[in-house]
Amino acid sequence: MTRIARFETYDVRFPTSATLDGSDAMNPSPDYAAAYVVVRTTDESVSGHGFVFTIGRGNDVELAAIRALEPAVAGLDLDGVLGDLGGMSRRLVGDSQLRWLGPEKGVMHMAIGAVLNALFDLAAKRAGLPLWKWLAGLAPAELLDFVDLRYLTDVLPRSEALEILEEGKRDVATRVALLEADGVEAYTTSPGWLGYSDERLRALLAEAKQDGFAQVKMKIGKSLDDDIRRLGLARELLGPSTRIAVDANQVFETEQAIAWAHALERFDIAWLEEPTSPDDILATAAIRRAVAPMPVAAGEHVANRVVFKQLLQAGAIDVMQIDACRVAGVPENIVNLLLAAKFNVPVCPHAGGVGLCEAVQHLAFFDYAAISGHSEHRRVEWIDHLHEHFVSPAAVAHGRYVAPGAPGASTEMHQSSLEQFSFPGGPAWSPAPAGASPAPVPA
Amino acid sequence: MTRIARFETYDVRFPTSATLDGSDAMNPSPDYAAAYVVVRTTDESVSGHGFVFTIGRGNDVELAAIRALEPAVAGLDLDGVLGDLGGMSRRLVGDSQLRWLGPEKGVMHMAIGAVLNALFDLAAKRAGLPLWKWLAGLAPAELLDFVDLRYLTDVLPRSEALEILEEGKRDVATRVALLEADGVEAYTTSPGWLGYSDERLRALLAEAKQDGFAQVKMKIGKSLDDDIRRLGLARELLGPSTRIAVDANQVFETEQAIAWAHALERFDIAWLEEPTSPDDILATAAIRRAVAPMPVAAGEHVANRVVFKQLLQAGAIDVMQIDACRVAGVPENIVNLLLAAKFNVPVCPHAGGVGLCEAVQHLAFFDYAAISGHSEHRRVEWIDHLHEHFVSPAAVAHGRYVAPGAPGASTEMHQSSLEQFSFPGGPAWSPAPAGASPAPVPA
Repeated sequence: MTRIARFETYDVRFPTSATLDGSDAMNPSPDYAAAYVVVRTTDESVSGHGFVFTIGRGNDVELAAIRALEPAVAGLDLDGVLGDLGGMSRRLVGDSQLRWLGPEKGVMHMAIGAVLNALFDLAAKRAGLPLWKWLAGLAPAELLDFVDLRYLTDVLPRSEALEILEEGKRDVATRVALLEADGVEAYTTSPGWLGYSDERLRALLAEAKQDGFAQVKMKIGKSLDDDIRRLGLARELLGPSTRIAVDANQVFETEQAIAWAHALERFDIAWLEEPTSPDDILATAAIRRAVAPMPVAAGEHVANRVVFKQLLQAGAIDVMQIDACRVAGVPENIVNLLLAAKFNVPVCPHAGGVGLCEAVQHLAFFDYAAISGHSEHRRVEWIDHLHEHFVSPAAVAHGRYVAPGAPGASTEMHQSSLEQFSFPGGPAWSPAPAGASPAPVPA
Repeated sequence: MTRIARFETYDVRFPTSATLDGSDAMNPSPDYAAAYVVVRTTDESVSGHGFVFTIGRGNDVELAAIRALEPAVAGLDLDGVLGDLGGMSRRLVGDSQLRWLGPEKGVMHMAIGAVLNALFDLAAKRAGLPLWKWLAGLAPAELLDFVDLRYLTDVLPRSEALEILEEGKRDVATRVALLEADGVEAYTTSPGWLGYSDERLRALLAEAKQDGFAQVKMKIGKSLDDDIRRLGLARELLGPSTRIAVDANQVFETEQAIAWAHALERFDIAWLEEPTSPDDILATAAIRRAVAPMPVAAGEHVANRVVFKQLLQAGAIDVMQIDACRVAGVPENIVNLLLAAKFNVPVCPHAGGVGLCEAVQHLAFFDYAAISGHSEHRRVEWIDHLHEHFVSPAAVAHGRYVAPGAPGASTEMHQSSLEQFSFPGGPAWSPAPAGASPAPVPA
């Protein structure tokens, strides 16, 4: 009998603040990081990999939360766990003592997500399939068993969730084949970081156009004059047919968001992303009403399914952006996809960071294959960054994600990367690179 | 010059699950715990004390988060920190890398709360005043400088916050004198835990009546039949004049909450507390509309001021229940009090646990003295439990909190308690008491 043996954890950080990759109005100097967990089993050839993406300081706190879950998982029979992943999910999320630390939000909830994602990686590897394809092949009742509809039954009763899954099952083989041939649309945020010079922005936009991206995203929100100049430059260079989305990363008050959006509408904005606090359902709804027809997008920092439910109920978003590492893993993201399907809102997952493209592509492919059933208005963020550290890196060609083919969830990093970027002792950090900001809270 | 020297941290846990004190429908077997921090200075006679209340497992994760903040505070000039507590608050909450772990919610946000509460304890001690009285003596502009109105300006512009504080300042000395003479009303939850037998419930209710409490609170939500029996018993024993509130601790779906409330309305319920998810603003509002005129209360698990703002905007609550340890400390709770004042909703703080009565009483006294200016419909939870571990324990006499008189925030525990209940090595835990449940996530 194979048992789950232990968690192996790594504090992996990349000194991205040295180059301002990833800089936006809220996050001026991130050090992209992963609180990384390997779920080891008594069979050395079988392991599951998961992580929480963070932007530096606090990655160690996230790891402490992951380690706090080890006693709930280690020692269990592997087949028993993989045969009841829904039960494991409900047990971890529902543990009353740990639940107090959220509930269902923040450090502890994300840690549960990392562990569940590692177990789903393990399950898909065992099935010999990429996660998205394994999920797409399961029966609706099996998928439904993964998910927790608690606090959702006012809008999504169990029977209706099952109907959506049954409807999604029709012609699933056709869509799987289509996905394997054509992938799903990607859009790129690589050019648009706030810390980049106009020159660099121009070069990267030209490259994005050359590479076949039909949409780019630009960071905004620090200076309106700069935003107008940068967007003017982008629109001129890209022409009218490339979509341009903008991302404010939560920096605005309600009135400010509305005024800023109006000042930018001449650039034909594909969507306005995260205009204000991710907790502020009512303000986001008010902003959407005021800036229409400019679409509003949000979700990468939404703590859980209950907040997504309300964003949809309140008519606050045109585009729902799930994140692979913010909620309680694959099971809660399946619920999020079901909610979006119920409200007929397209899901355009958040990615970038460390491994977010790798992880979230499976959810996007699964959404198209077995839940939404179509790809209209659906596109997945792409940032060409840090993929080389993954064993099966995500790949984009001609502006489209290529269907992942390797067994598992694509979440496994190279052992050499885990060691090289180990914080603070790894070679990449000793000595710390010039310009990187691992130091505590700058004054 | 006195500097902040270091954080001293303690994982303190009380084996309350052995006796089912604190048991409710969501939390069947808590081990009341504190992630406790002493902010030491280079002057040994000066220290600040703060904590996050948890219910057992994960207390160590909370401590890791507290320790992650030490580098941002240690080494600073004490006068500089105490002279700009608002700046310190904004710096800790706003640190972009740590913010990613919430934002402004869960483990990291509560850790910031513990550190800020310790610094406010220190400030009040230095002023030689109990925290509530020190706050009540500050100028409106000084109070306003503590707070962060980010994401609130759509309902509470700075000018309006200042008006509320200026209005609160009128006759403050009279109210301080009244508070010192009469205190504020307390209500007791001690009798109503779900794990108690009817016999014990009866005895404790009789004791509560005898002790002069005008309100008791009962836990509900596990079995409707049990709830009806227990409430019938309570109403019969207490008679019509004692108010009875009920607390569901988040266990209901929307429809279920409404049906349950209707089944209990014959017992003349003072308020229905936490009927569903603390994140579910829209569901709480729907429940309130459906169960009116039964009042709805919520807030002890509300993550931050942005969620409180929306609960008030949506008309979801009749009673706002702040918690001393859930949000980012005294500064964010001052904002919460200002929001409640703006919407004219009474604040009845959540207490109990370990040290919550001690900490939150200062906010209630300050609210009456300098913000709301009156005590109508305002009462503070009281649970007669674990107070002996505090140097200046909260006290209730004839159903009223006695005004705290000792300098500081009443958050300091006896060194002997910190050592005795240290987990897992302290004498209280070695060996672990029979019936206590410190073990990892029970299957």
